Amino acid sequence: MYTAKARAVDGPHQPFHATEIKRRNLDSHDVLIEIKYSGICHSDIHTAHGEWGEVNYPLVPGHEIAGVVSDVGPEVTKYKVGDRVGVGCMVDSCGECENCRRGEEQYCHQGNVQTYGGVDKYGEPTQGGYSTHIVVTEDFVLRIPDNIELDVAAPLLCAGITTYSPLNHWNAGPGKKVAVVGMGGLGHMAVKIAHAMGAEVTVLSRTLNKKEDGLEFGAENYYATSEKETFETLAGSFDLIINTVSAKLDMDAYFSLLNLDGSLVNVGAPAEPLSVNVFSLIGHRRSFAGSLIGGIRETQEMLDFCAEHNIVPKIEVISADQIDEAYTRVLDSDVKYRFVIDVSTI
Amino acid sequence: MYTAKARAVDGPHQPFHATEIKRRNLDSHDVLIEIKYSGICHSDIHTAHGEWGEVNYPLVPGHEIAGVVSDVGPEVTKYKVGDRVGVGCMVDSCGECENCRRGEEQYCHQGNVQTYGGVDKYGEPTQGGYSTHIVVTEDFVLRIPDNIELDVAAPLLCAGITTYSPLNHWNAGPGKKVAVVGMGGLGHMAVKIAHAMGAEVTVLSRTLNKKEDGLEFGAENYYATSEKETFETLAGSFDLIINTVSAKLDMDAYFSLLNLDGSLVNVGAPAEPLSVNVFSLIGHRRSFAGSLIGGIRETQEMLDFCAEHNIVPKIEVISADQIDEAYTRVLDSDVKYRFVIDVSTI
Repeated sequence: MYTAKARAVDGPHQPFHATEIKRRNLDSHDVLIEIKYSGICHSDIHTAHGEWGEVNYPLVPGHEIAGVVSDVGPEVTKYKVGDRVGVGCMVDSCGECENCRRGEEQYCHQGNVQTYGGVDKYGEPTQGGYSTHIVVTEDFVLRIPDNIELDVAAPLLCAGITTYSPLNHWNAGPGKKVAVVGMGGLGHMAVKIAHAMGAEVTVLSRTLNKKEDGLEFGAENYYATSEKETFETLAGSFDLIINTVSAKLDMDAYFSLLNLDGSLVNVGAPAEPLSVNVFSLIGHRRSFAGSLIGGIRETQEMLDFCAEHNIVPKIEVISADQIDEAYTRVLDSDVKYRFVIDVSTI
Repeated sequence: MYTAKARAVDGPHQPFHATEIKRRNLDSHDVLIEIKYSGICHSDIHTAHGEWGEVNYPLVPGHEIAGVVSDVGPEVTKYKVGDRVGVGCMVDSCGECENCRRGEEQYCHQGNVQTYGGVDKYGEPTQGGYSTHIVVTEDFVLRIPDNIELDVAAPLLCAGITTYSPLNHWNAGPGKKVAVVGMGGLGHMAVKIAHAMGAEVTVLSRTLNKKEDGLEFGAENYYATSEKETFETLAGSFDLIINTVSAKLDMDAYFSLLNLDGSLVNVGAPAEPLSVNVFSLIGHRRSFAGSLIGGIRETQEMLDFCAEHNIVPKIEVISADQIDEAYTRVLDSDVKYRFVIDVSTI
């Protein structure tokens, strides 16, 4: 067993504290990663606060992990010591079901093993990236392209793939009008990626506060959803809306912005159910869909796409002592656009 | 102007009464149709009862119309006196918008002109098929194939196209598992059409009362949704669910029956909003969609498909004096499977 330093939380709305956790000995296909940077995702906050169901505390969150391979199991073929690698939201899956065989491990019939708050195949609780080391089977380790620095690579492992996957699946590209709801960690990645895919991108944010950034990231239009005219002006405009907001929105108002056969895809997951007036969908054969991260193959594809198009998130690097403050600021939408923990400070 | 006999209702929950209505003189492209049969659709009831918004009473419902051409305007080229024809849910549209040009007149940007309860291009309120005659521009008239009798043809113009269109759009066919929720007028057509398209069809009905019919119509499986095991047994089973029920269902339970990338398509429109837990969609990249009838070209395609596959609805022919009783029976789900008014009794 390896001992790793970590930051854990003992219950909902408790402060983070320094601790030590055990990482398993390397199995034949395992990779030991020395974590360098770990992003703070809104999901970490939902989970740490117990809003997404029962949590097995103490909890070490973190599923936007970038680091360097420091040891490998005897049968590892994909990675060697010194490789720059990442880990995202899952660390294992059954590998045998239809979805796993299709490379959509995130939708594993047995349920994928989440990077933290899950239970691994040895029956042990998983702990995430707010930690100096992690052991992961090589099939769930990603290669970080050389031209992406590790600090900005970290958020790609969740915010990047969570937005890339639906943009890819719903064919964002030239001739398509794509709206991104919310200009947070996910939203700003969605803008950059959709723009790089060739779509015409519009940001729908509560206010115009981040308009300058949005246009710089590649949006052609930027509207405030707090202004009622926005919904009149943009009625029937979009082929695809990526909704990154995990709060309860007036969905019917957003559906009205879709053109015939348009889809609104939620990547944010509000804790409460949403209200849907079916007439909003029937009127233009619209779809309301959800999308969960992406498979491992697609995550590597996303990293390579970002490397090719020079896409990285805009981040604020913080020390481990600032996690509680960072959580508060994320909840206040006061971050441009992702906090990343410098793991050397843990 | 032509005078037509009709059955009208003067307000929500009022009885139908005999009346006379005017039909416009034939414009250059108009067709005068002597109506022989008119189906009773659940939408007629919602509208007559004022549940779908303001109604301009007196109202003559009916948008499942089958009859014979009895006169044509001077420039009509598609039909001649004596032709067997039908009219569905719409009688006109702008003809110029993107959706009309694509043949999706039901999604006309200006709003299509509904067969009853709408306002035509002359500014006059439209009145439907519970009537001896109707005047419709030839582009919104359908040809009824020779081997389909007029009484069973009538329900195809709404129940047929409303189910054919989403089955067609979402690619029901060999290798696809399709569930149909509800075994009423729309549901029983969905079963027959999906089966003829080559899909494996499962009926999800509240009880097993109509199981024998369902299997005869082409379903391979039939489950009662009143039994909780149904949702466990069928979890993750379907590529496509056509929901024909216009009541408030537990949508999350139905979403759980979809496989990866599956779609649940509502063709029924509940008056109240539905509750959707986004996690139900995100978990398997599922979609919740709506679909509205079909375009004119697709409606003709549906009629020809039904003729080729010997698909007709199972109906009960009633006289005009039985409309009130029929409404009550439809609301009690006590009809196998569509009431059709013999218009000679009006």
